[in-house]
Amino acid sequence: MNFLEERICRDGVVKEGNVLKVDQFLNHQMDTALFKQMGEEFQKRFAGKNINKILTIEASGIGIACVVAMYFDVPVVFAKKSKSINIEGDMYIAEVESFTHKCKNQVIVSKKYLGPDDHVLIIDDFLANGCALQGLISIVNQAGGTVEGIGIAIEKGFQSGGRVIRNLGYQLESLAIVEGMDASTGAITFREQNTCN
Amino acid sequence: MNFLEERICRDGVVKEGNVLKVDQFLNHQMDTALFKQMGEEFQKRFAGKNINKILTIEASGIGIACVVAMYFDVPVVFAKKSKSINIEGDMYIAEVESFTHKCKNQVIVSKKYLGPDDHVLIIDDFLANGCALQGLISIVNQAGGTVEGIGIAIEKGFQSGGRVIRNLGYQLESLAIVEGMDASTGAITFREQNTCN
Repeated sequence: MNFLEERICRDGVVKEGNVLKVDQFLNHQMDTALFKQMGEEFQKRFAGKNINKILTIEASGIGIACVVAMYFDVPVVFAKKSKSINIEGDMYIAEVESFTHKCKNQVIVSKKYLGPDDHVLIIDDFLANGCALQGLISIVNQAGGTVEGIGIAIEKGFQSGGRVIRNLGYQLESLAIVEGMDASTGAITFREQNTCN
Repeated sequence: MNFLEERICRDGVVKEGNVLKVDQFLNHQMDTALFKQMGEEFQKRFAGKNINKILTIEASGIGIACVVAMYFDVPVVFAKKSKSINIEGDMYIAEVESFTHKCKNQVIVSKKYLGPDDHVLIIDDFLANGCALQGLISIVNQAGGTVEGIGIAIEKGFQSGGRVIRNLGYQLESLAIVEGMDASTGAITFREQNTCN
């Protein structure tokens, strides 16, 4: 198991309904030492890529993205979730359906901060059905930029989001891919047959 | 002028109604090299303080907090904005009124991640009327923890938030304190009589 899989086993909590709670270290309390390890790992996996910007989405993607950005020496842009139609200036807009909150949101990025010259690494904490990620890819495409890669902390491999994105030819790197969870025992199975309790 | 005041002069935009737009480097696009300078400066200003946790609030506080946290070797906890009453588990809750969005939000932090042993540095991007900051202080107090200090990127010195917090005896360090802005000329005046166009 790698460092993130080990941490998920130690501090993640499996709940009914295929819910994995990782708020001890990833998306409420944030372990920045762990984020540094993630930055080092993404730096290896995207070595040789010409990346000049990181794109993420609020809220919990921002912390990871900012620490990872220090390994690439690039700025971060975060897409804002907004139901408002009263947005100042020109914006790229994508519709995103939230798995957790069961609602549709618009996500927006100012046209000032993404354009045809941008070579973008997309970073997010979770990938499940892939709606948020599809929205971010759509925004880079609207800008005429290039998606150089996608770095995810935890992918739910039993949902379709990751497969679709890989089928489309993107380099998608998930540091931990959960293949299955059992809320009654707390067992988590990772892709590559690593299992822990 | 210090590094942040210089950056505000270069890339900040003054709008009518005492609005200072800094989304080029602080709260939409995020310049993580600048955030590192902020981390170094806060490390100096809070040297000798016994800090074991950083508390911030979503969304734009998170990036700064995570980079600053690397200079203190501590985890970050971010308060979540929520209108939901269906929150799992025990939470500290504070009411926060938003100056920008003119609405009331609850901000919540899980009781799991803040307690009596915590010595907290509060980090945020903006301080104006101080409502968000008061909510964060309230949450630390509810937890029985200690506010060791408060680090802000940009304070609007002509609003009352900072004065109230300093009157209460907290060590509040704002890297740039804007005393006045003129939307017609773009002029910004900082505390200590530094002025730029």
